Amino acid sequence: MSCFVTHLESAIDGTSLPADTIQTLHKDRPLWVRYDLPAIARVLSPEKLASREPTLWRYRELLPLPTDETPISLGEGMSPLIPASNLGQSLGLDQFWIKDESQLPTGSFKSRGLAMAVTMANHFGIKRVAIPTAGNAGGAMAAYAARAGMEAYIFMPRDTPVINQMECVMAGAKVFLVEGLITDCGKIVRQGIDEMKWFDFSTLKEPYRIEGKKTMGLELAEQFNWQLPDVIVYPTGGGTGLIGMWKAFHELRELGWLTSDNMPKMVSVQSDGCAPIVKAFEANERFATPWEGAHTCASGLRVPAAVGDFMILDAIRESGGWAVSAAEEKIISTMYRATAMEGISVCPEAAACVLAIEKLITNGQITRTDRVVMFNTGTANKYIETARLNLPVIHDPASVDYSTLAP
Amino acid sequence: MSCFVTHLESAIDGTSLPADTIQTLHKDRPLWVRYDLPAIARVLSPEKLASREPTLWRYRELLPLPTDETPISLGEGMSPLIPASNLGQSLGLDQFWIKDESQLPTGSFKSRGLAMAVTMANHFGIKRVAIPTAGNAGGAMAAYAARAGMEAYIFMPRDTPVINQMECVMAGAKVFLVEGLITDCGKIVRQGIDEMKWFDFSTLKEPYRIEGKKTMGLELAEQFNWQLPDVIVYPTGGGTGLIGMWKAFHELRELGWLTSDNMPKMVSVQSDGCAPIVKAFEANERFATPWEGAHTCASGLRVPAAVGDFMILDAIRESGGWAVSAAEEKIISTMYRATAMEGISVCPEAAACVLAIEKLITNGQITRTDRVVMFNTGTANKYIETARLNLPVIHDPASVDYSTLAP
Repeated sequence: MSCFVTHLESAIDGTSLPADTIQTLHKDRPLWVRYDLPAIARVLSPEKLASREPTLWRYRELLPLPTDETPISLGEGMSPLIPASNLGQSLGLDQFWIKDESQLPTGSFKSRGLAMAVTMANHFGIKRVAIPTAGNAGGAMAAYAARAGMEAYIFMPRDTPVINQMECVMAGAKVFLVEGLITDCGKIVRQGIDEMKWFDFSTLKEPYRIEGKKTMGLELAEQFNWQLPDVIVYPTGGGTGLIGMWKAFHELRELGWLTSDNMPKMVSVQSDGCAPIVKAFEANERFATPWEGAHTCASGLRVPAAVGDFMILDAIRESGGWAVSAAEEKIISTMYRATAMEGISVCPEAAACVLAIEKLITNGQITRTDRVVMFNTGTANKYIETARLNLPVIHDPASVDYSTLAP
Repeated sequence: MSCFVTHLESAIDGTSLPADTIQTLHKDRPLWVRYDLPAIARVLSPEKLASREPTLWRYRELLPLPTDETPISLGEGMSPLIPASNLGQSLGLDQFWIKDESQLPTGSFKSRGLAMAVTMANHFGIKRVAIPTAGNAGGAMAAYAARAGMEAYIFMPRDTPVINQMECVMAGAKVFLVEGLITDCGKIVRQGIDEMKWFDFSTLKEPYRIEGKKTMGLELAEQFNWQLPDVIVYPTGGGTGLIGMWKAFHELRELGWLTSDNMPKMVSVQSDGCAPIVKAFEANERFATPWEGAHTCASGLRVPAAVGDFMILDAIRESGGWAVSAAEEKIISTMYRATAMEGISVCPEAAACVLAIEKLITNGQITRTDRVVMFNTGTANKYIETARLNLPVIHDPASVDYSTLAP
């Protein structure tokens, strides 16, 4: 591989593996991509970045893309970092931003990881891919696979949001609904590898999705002029984004680009209807126990077991952050409240983050002067099942009694 | 007004009007915003633009934003210009791009115009706004009004896509469904101005939405390194985008930034279920007759009468372009076909453009070597009513017969 990647490294035991062939897990656990950071520091600088195209590929040297490879791209990144002072003030924060990932291809942050994973799979000549999904990852994989001309198999719980079903079908994927959870879908993909000869695109089961998600951290650093915020609040299903951002911050520190040594506290947010990471965090465990009876309207959080659980928990603890659960029954009303305050289309997973911030402020873990960033991981428009519509109908446009229109 | 705006100009008779007060129509027809372009050319250059933030506000000098005003922004623009060679080759085009507006706030191009209109309304102290909408404009207005703290009234046909209804409600707008078309909704807004004291945000009834939409043309020019494409294919409801882009190209020519004198042919696309502009174009009329019995699944094209009809038709003719109708019954299947080819979420309005391009190639009006750009004005995810789902269900994840999964 002719880029700056040196090797892959097992996250569980540090074993070194070559990056120039297809890799999946090592001892059933994920791999890190490692780079020659001193060499990157010699050829790249924040100044050089400034005039590059506004996509995640601006960070090319920090990505596994081989030098001679064209990315499979839909123009993903860089998402806006939007000041959210109305919501911030209501929460008791003087400095609050929302990183709005709803403005990426397919309307969610999943396009970062899948753009990278599909690009690398394409590089290795893979022609057929399969994924278990809570919804948005399937939509993103379908889109990039379509662009790459790959055959895509998608397995999703039967009650996955209908928009996610639709986007996968539109992109030409073969979509199957499964009576069960994402973990059941994962089993179907795993057990079909030999017979179906597909490549398993499950979260963290190939090493490159995390590198795509890492760009959330790179963008955040650049948008904050290389001084990281104090707290990052992030909804956690499979956890790739949180793991990836924490990796990004370490790489930036080693590159010498950060203007302060202060690293952000990483906050992992789940719903109390499915909170395996929160449970493990509170019990001081490094590995999480699969959650029984997972249920939440925030479909992206309905992940009862994550193969990267220890990587998430390590990052949270190393950062001095927390794992926090949100009250499931308050999520939908919070989506509506937050969207009406900022005009940002706040998805249920991000609404859970708002609730988590309220908890952390109440407990004194976050204070008014902290610089806090929350991730909106997708557009609320994909969650039509959460709609609360009971709209008045005007039957005769010619004779409207305007006095009745006021609320 | 302390920016480069000199005055407003009536599009129907050239009358000059001051820009430092609230303006609407003149003789029931729209206004142009005029600038001191020589002064802009002295302070701004393509080189200066290159390192600015990737939003439409990078073109600040060419926008009506007063110097001391902060925009009401959700990070809108600049949308990616995506090479679409799979679809292009299938159409018989060697050079084909999709400008993907689905990646803007609220998932559609409408955020450009409404960001600008709400910013200006806010500048003038307007606190209550109302809009008739086919769907996406309402969603965008609701979002920006929420951000600005304005009260928003939205009137939409009863069968407007449900996602559009949802996004307006989420953003806190007062939403009313109307038995009728967008023109009936427009009447309700117009007739309520005195009693409700709201500002009428109908298409082109205030002068600034067009300036926001103009940025599609500015971005396109910059992304093509200031050499415009040969043909621009654009779906047309109210037509603000087509009018705005044509205005942008004239302004860029006057600034001296274009590297070639060749201006693109502007192609306006409608559905044969609602094609007033096409009918007027073919009849050599400058004004369009309201379309009777308008119907199309491409809700953004369901605009039976446009107040800027003559501005659309003037631009098409001046550019040497055409107005073309697409076969309504082919739109949904074309959405699916195009999305599966490129991975771009192609909305029904853009699918109509694909069909129009096929017509123009068949007729020899577009040729293989033309550099053609098509606009994808929004995400297909907002049109759940067009979904074609009949997905297989796996009832027992533990015992899957993989031989049945192949299509």
